[in-house]
Parts: sequence; C-alpha cells; structure tokens
Amino acid sequence: MENFTFHNPTHIIFGKGAEDKVGTEVKRYTSKVLLHYGTGSIIKSGVYQKIIDSLSESGISYIELPGAMPNPRLSLVREGVDICKKENIGFILAVGGGSAIDSAKAIAVGACYNGDVWDFFDQKAQPDKALGVGVVLTIPAAGSEMSNSMVITNENGWHKRGSTTEIIRPVFAIMNPELTYTLSDYQTVCGIADILAHVLERYFTNSTNVDFTDRLCEATMRAVIHNAPLVLKDPSDYNARAEIMWAGTIAHNDFLSTGRIGDWASHQIEHELSGIYDVPHGAGLAVVFPAWMKYVYQHDVRRFAQFAARVFGVDYSFVSPEITALEGIDRLKQFFSILGLPVSLKELEIPDDRLEEMAQKCKKVNKQEGTIGNFVKLNQQDILNILKSAL
Amino acid sequence: MENFTFHNPTHIIFGKGAEDKVGTEVKRYTSKVLLHYGTGSIIKSGVYQKIIDSLSESGISYIELPGAMPNPRLSLVREGVDICKKENIGFILAVGGGSAIDSAKAIAVGACYNGDVWDFFDQKAQPDKALGVGVVLTIPAAGSEMSNSMVITNENGWHKRGSTTEIIRPVFAIMNPELTYTLSDYQTVCGIADILAHVLERYFTNSTNVDFTDRLCEATMRAVIHNAPLVLKDPSDYNARAEIMWAGTIAHNDFLSTGRIGDWASHQIEHELSGIYDVPHGAGLAVVFPAWMKYVYQHDVRRFAQFAARVFGVDYSFVSPEITALEGIDRLKQFFSILGLPVSLKELEIPDDRLEEMAQKCKKVNKQEGTIGNFVKLNQQDILNILKSAL
Repeated sequence: MENFTFHNPTHIIFGKGAEDKVGTEVKRYTSKVLLHYGTGSIIKSGVYQKIIDSLSESGISYIELPGAMPNPRLSLVREGVDICKKENIGFILAVGGGSAIDSAKAIAVGACYNGDVWDFFDQKAQPDKALGVGVVLTIPAAGSEMSNSMVITNENGWHKRGSTTEIIRPVFAIMNPELTYTLSDYQTVCGIADILAHVLERYFTNSTNVDFTDRLCEATMRAVIHNAPLVLKDPSDYNARAEIMWAGTIAHNDFLSTGRIGDWASHQIEHELSGIYDVPHGAGLAVVFPAWMKYVYQHDVRRFAQFAARVFGVDYSFVSPEITALEGIDRLKQFFSILGLPVSLKELEIPDDRLEEMAQKCKKVNKQEGTIGNFVKLNQQDILNILKSAL
Repeated sequence: MENFTFHNPTHIIFGKGAEDKVGTEVKRYTSKVLLHYGTGSIIKSGVYQKIIDSLSESGISYIELPGAMPNPRLSLVREGVDICKKENIGFILAVGGGSAIDSAKAIAVGACYNGDVWDFFDQKAQPDKALGVGVVLTIPAAGSEMSNSMVITNENGWHKRGSTTEIIRPVFAIMNPELTYTLSDYQTVCGIADILAHVLERYFTNSTNVDFTDRLCEATMRAVIHNAPLVLKDPSDYNARAEIMWAGTIAHNDFLSTGRIGDWASHQIEHELSGIYDVPHGAGLAVVFPAWMKYVYQHDVRRFAQFAARVFGVDYSFVSPEITALEGIDRLKQFFSILGLPVSLKELEIPDDRLEEMAQKCKKVNKQEGTIGNFVKLNQQDILNILKSAL
C-alpha cells in the first residue's frame, strides 16, 4: 500500500427534496452567487425554478451564466471569470452535471488569478486560491461534485485538458436522485460508463497489497452493474437512481484510490476523442477502455483475472488465468453494448483519418515523459495502436 | 435508501513516518496543545519521543495529560477540561487508540461548556462548540480518529455512555501502520473485533435498497477477515497492518452507513459489560455480537444469509436459507475464536450474577422508548435473554 493523504470536506446532502436546501446552504458562504448551468434542461425539468425560489427565500441574489455544454468550453469559463471579477462575486453555484461543475471550478480558480485561466490546464501555473463552489447535481457521471479535478476544452486547437487541485473540491453537493429521472437513456448510460471508468482507472494499478481498496472498487462496480439495467427499465426507479448517483460520487472522490496509484491513460486518450469530435465523454470511454484493457492485460494477467472473477463473476480458470482475464474484458464490452453504448470508433461515428493526430496530441499531455498512463506507460505508437484496435 | 447527509472533513495522513508531520499539522491550528495519551506504551515504543521532537521543531508548547485508559474515565476528562480552561488551551492532541481519542473529544466539548461534561453523555445537553482535536493513532479499533462519536465511563455507578456530534470529528489523523507493530496479539484481535462490529452494526438494517453500501460493508469485512490472520502470523507485516488500520477508520467514519440506519444494540449491551467489568470493548463485542445475531436473525433471514454467503463464502442453501444464515453466525464466532477472542461470558470471566442489573441499566440508555436497537427493538427481557445465551 502506498502512503497517502485523504481530505474530502465536501458536505453531501442526499435524498428526496434535497434541492430545497440550496438557499440555506449557500447562505452559509455568501449572499450573492454566480448561478452557472447548462443549456436549459434544468429549466424544462423545473429544477431551475426550485433553486431560484430557494435562493430568494434565503435572500441570495444571483447573476446567471447559462450555456455550459458537454466538454465545457474555455470561452465560457473566461466569461465567468470576468463576471466574477467585475461583479465581485465570491461563490459559484453549479447546477447540472460534470460540465457545469467543471466549468464552475475553472471559473473559481480563474477569478482568483491575474493571468489567463488556461495556464492551469496548460501546466504553466498551479492555482493557490479559489472561490467557493456549491453544486446541485442533476447528472451522475463525472463525480465532479466531490472531486479535486476539472476538465476544460480550449476551442483554439480543441485541446481538452484537466487540472487537479484540492482547493476546488465543492463545499457542498446537493444530490436528489429524483432530479435524474428526466435524463435520456443515452445520457444515463454515458454517465454509467464514466462512473465505471473512474473506478477502473483506480483499479488497474501496480501498487501491491491493496486488498481492501480492491474490494471497495469491486463492490462499487458490482453495484453500478447491478443497478444500471434497473434504471433503464424504469427511469423513475428511485432506489436504482440513488445507487448509481451515490456510486458516481464515490467512484471519483479519491476514497477508492487511497493507498494506490491509478492509471488514467484511457481518460487521456478519450479526451482527444471528445476534444475533437465532441462526443459524450462516457461514450468515448466505453470505446477506449475495453481497447486499452485488451492492449495492456498481459502486463498483469492476475489482476485482470481478479477483475473478471470478482466483478463479473467469471469462473476462474485455474488452467489458464488468461482465459479468465480476456473473458472479463469481453464481459465489460458486452455490458456497455447491452446498455446501448458504442464500443467501437465506428459506432461512435469517428473516422480513421485523424488517429495519428490524436495520438500525437495525447502523448504531449505529460510533457516530461512523453508517455501517458501509470499501469503501463504508453508512448505515441501505443496510443495509436489502441485507437486503431478500437476502430 | 434513506435520505442522508455526509460530511467528514478529517484530514488523513497515512503511511510510513507519518508521525513526523505532527508538528506541522498542529501548527496549522495552534502553538499550544494539551497532549493527551495513555499509560506509557507510547513512551516505551518511542512514539512519544518522536512526537515531542516534532512538536518542538514546530515551536509548539504542550501540557501533558497522560493516564487515558481503556474505557476512558470521566474523572480524567474533567481534569483535562480544567486544564484547558485554566491554561487557555485551544487544541488537544490525542496519541493512542479510541480511549485517548474519546477522552480528548470529551475534554474538547467540556472545555467549551459551563456545566458538567457528563451532561452530554447523560442526554441533558448537546454540545455546540468544541476545541480542535488532532490524532496520532496507535491502535486500530475504535475508528474514533475520523468519527463523530465518543464513549466515556462514569466511575460513579460505572455508567458507560456515548455521545454523538459532528463537531468532534478530529481535524486530522496521522496513521502509520508501523506504530501498531508493538500491539500485543490480544490488543490486535480486540481491535479487529471492534472494527468488524462497527461494520456489522451498520450492515444489519431495515433500510431497503441499499445494495451499494451492503457491498461496501461486505468488502470491508472481507478485507479485515483476510488480513487478520496475516497480522497475527507476522505482527510486523506492514501491508496487513495497513489494511486493518485503514479499514478500521472506514468502518466507523459513517461512509458505510450512508443511506441506511444501523442497529447499535450490541454496542449498548457491550457497554454494560465493559462499564462494570472493565473488559476490552472488542472482547466484549466478540461475545455479544454472535449472541445478538442468533437472537434476532429470524427477523430477516435473507440478510443473514447474504452476510454468510458474501462475507464468509458460505454456499447458499436454496432449500433452506435459514441454514445459510445460521452458518454465517457460526463462522463469525469461529473466526473470533480462532483469533483467540472470547466468545462467551465465561471465557470473558464474567459471572452470571449481575446480568439483570446490566439489562436494567442498558434499556435505560434510550430513555424515551425503553428499548435499544433499530434492526430489532430489544426490551429489558430481550437484553437479558441475549446475555444469558452468551453465558
């Protein structure tokens, strides 16, 4: 087990009607917020009105910044930063999923910085101060509501880059599973793929003697896999929605990675896909992850066999653990497929003519080494091979 | 799943040499602490000196209050409260296990209160303010290092009572598994029983649709059960010690009980045993828990069968789930027994002449209802029956 620190002070308010508490929660920090959300679905669903009412009841004024979209854009972040500086706003309330939250986090660090906020994503600077961010979650997927990370897309060159800092963990996250009833099946399953990917990135590690967190990861994946079909069968199944929602938070709040070093290559490869083609992050991950697994499984057949046996209940082959390992990867791919997710670039409608460009951009993310991933370090050719195998 | 809130801001610093950071951590809060610890084992093991050195390096002065003992006493708490008030101390550093930490927490609330600190345990008052508490953990067991609860014994009548409040979660906990190498086998296994009991209290619930947290509880129990014999075989097995230590924290930091209502009858029954006979809490739990399980399992055979199958790998009997359920209870008892823990009052050297008195005192804990437990509400006669069945 690796040495670690863990400090996650996000206050979770989870359950039916939780959004009614947003005014009271915000009031602890400020009386004026930047209200940041997406493209209107929260208005249609009625969440917007509830939040406005709750803020008003608590005497909180707000300036609105709508328009956060999937793969949230740098231009909107800059706009938010300007508003916060000009209007002297000290707190951002994000309503939505990972896009609105990540965008809010970027605004929160940008507003406390004299340079350009992209510096934090371009590894030119590390943020040391941030405005407070509160969350009303409506899409379980990114886990951003309790995480220390954010991912922003720079339209200039379509670079999608992440930044990690403890100071951007939201101070509270309000989570009512009922607010997720109106998600489409496709949004729902993209979220599920994202959640599973967050666990998988942590699960495939070279850290040894991590039995406890292995089992916690497996427990989380099993719960998601068990509840996913229930949500599709009945989108208003409160309990299944609740399990997925809470698992989505836990998958990415760093609890499951205590004492272990995760991989994260698949996320970086996927960022190139969604950076250029603007596909949903979860859909991209459903394509990339099984391809990555097949490419690297020989690095640690035992771990892949454990994944197959414990997560998908594959009968362990004592004669050939490799058979078990491969069966686990197939099962994951089948699971994604049954949910209606793409499992190839073709299904994602991504052509084969820019794979080299993506591999080239991707390996530059980690400037010093020119490789990505920790479980297996991948160079540009490896990334290209994985993308080609996903065609 | 039940509505819930979760907010656990304790900063964990985990790993080899972590105790060297104690001065730096304390410095964030104060330059003068009450240093509270037990009966000398930390001096023998050398931890004391390391901590003193680290505090000195950071320019922190300290007043010492040693003497915290298993089932920590009210008289020492009162002494600590007096010191804090007199010396104007704003922060308590607890070094040890649950006893030193619980005692420190009680001092922390008592020092901010004009009345007698026992009021908080006697349900006469609820604390609304506390001094900061930091922890260097040397005994994985109570989970107090990241919990919101404390248990104190009043020597006047030997009442052992708990109190719960969010304001007493320690601000940091330093956890180096190496510091647990010197624990005796018996201290180690008592801790393991306590850890398992914290999960079991949460696991046996009437809350429905709690698949995710069920699995997290099972994962935690399996990890503890897997690592316990490894620690006994080699007390210096860093990795096994680390798994037990981290599992001990997670078992009681409320993460595993998100969305579910726990039972806690066994803890309350055990408090009567250790209140009067001063037995180790974990040893008492190893006796009480299997007896409680056997007494109540018919309330939810399915859940007990699930426990047996998923935690101990018992083959599920489709013909008679009850057989599976009972086998699970037996396996837990065997597990305790193999570790060298007592599984009967006789083995704990507790005679049968004060069982009525304990049952009588115990049912008074919850003054309003006169019963204890949530999974099954137990009256005085039930408590007596359980104690008798444990003879």
